[in-house]
Amino acid sequence: MNLKDKIRVISDFPKEGIRFKDITTLLKDGQALRETIEQLALLAEEMQPDIVVGPEARGFVIGTPLAYHMGKGFVPIRKKGKLPCETLKGEYKLEYGTDALEIHKDALEPGQKVVIADDLLATGGTIETCINLVEQAGAQVVGVIFLIELTYLSGREVLHDYAVKSLIKF
Amino acid sequence: MNLKDKIRVISDFPKEGIRFKDITTLLKDGQALRETIEQLALLAEEMQPDIVVGPEARGFVIGTPLAYHMGKGFVPIRKKGKLPCETLKGEYKLEYGTDALEIHKDALEPGQKVVIADDLLATGGTIETCINLVEQAGAQVVGVIFLIELTYLSGREVLHDYAVKSLIKF
Repeated sequence: MNLKDKIRVISDFPKEGIRFKDITTLLKDGQALRETIEQLALLAEEMQPDIVVGPEARGFVIGTPLAYHMGKGFVPIRKKGKLPCETLKGEYKLEYGTDALEIHKDALEPGQKVVIADDLLATGGTIETCINLVEQAGAQVVGVIFLIELTYLSGREVLHDYAVKSLIKF
Repeated sequence: MNLKDKIRVISDFPKEGIRFKDITTLLKDGQALRETIEQLALLAEEMQPDIVVGPEARGFVIGTPLAYHMGKGFVPIRKKGKLPCETLKGEYKLEYGTDALEIHKDALEPGQKVVIADDLLATGGTIETCINLVEQAGAQVVGVIFLIELTYLSGREVLHDYAVKSLIKF
């Protein structure tokens, strides 16, 4: 199956000039979802993680089934104010707009090997913040996995100190 | 494994008097996550769904691995403004506050059998809106699955026309 064909490209969302990659058309196809997670797991298994971390909200859609498939746990990075216990906080810029993210201070163990999973690598800003949060929590980022990479935005260069893998390139 | 023991109860979050059920302590335990999804799948399979629907954001954490395990597709219900194509909209009240949800108009096929999955049944308001959105989209809700049910809030009564199953009761 060509998974790239399952992604719908929407012009001018959420603002003019952005060609939004809509993964809902892939997700709703059971066979495509299965192949996606299996292929992402092959990429992630090479990194030998102890646990998977993913940012709200589309990182949950990729990270949780990936963790489940690998028999690993999943740690959410959330928008501010959503996590109930003591958190570490990080601000970041989006491709469009800004936001802040949090992780529970006790979510990870010192030295734990982490793969971060998200749907999309654009400029890399969100993931840089996620990496900082994981490292602040005392764990080690062994790799970063994306369903989609927008190669023309060169987000990979921002993450040059880390193993970065993606399944579908635009 | 007693999955209920894996859930951390936090007093007075997000406001005084709420005893928040923190599922992050369950999710980060790979074995607990695996057992949770396997047990939820046993409940969902009895409903014989074609597809799984889940609301942002914690519904993604439950719904996506559940769909993946069952070999079904997953359809997200999102906060307003997040979905790029034409949507159906529904307002709802939370246990604390209000919000609005959307589903893509073309997300489901007429007559498709849907299981809705979420982390928590409280008053049932969120899920009532999800049910309305699925039915507006022309599909059929064959059941609703929760990781946690707060039985003292009687959300099940609001959903009396539907098959409701939950794994952990408080």
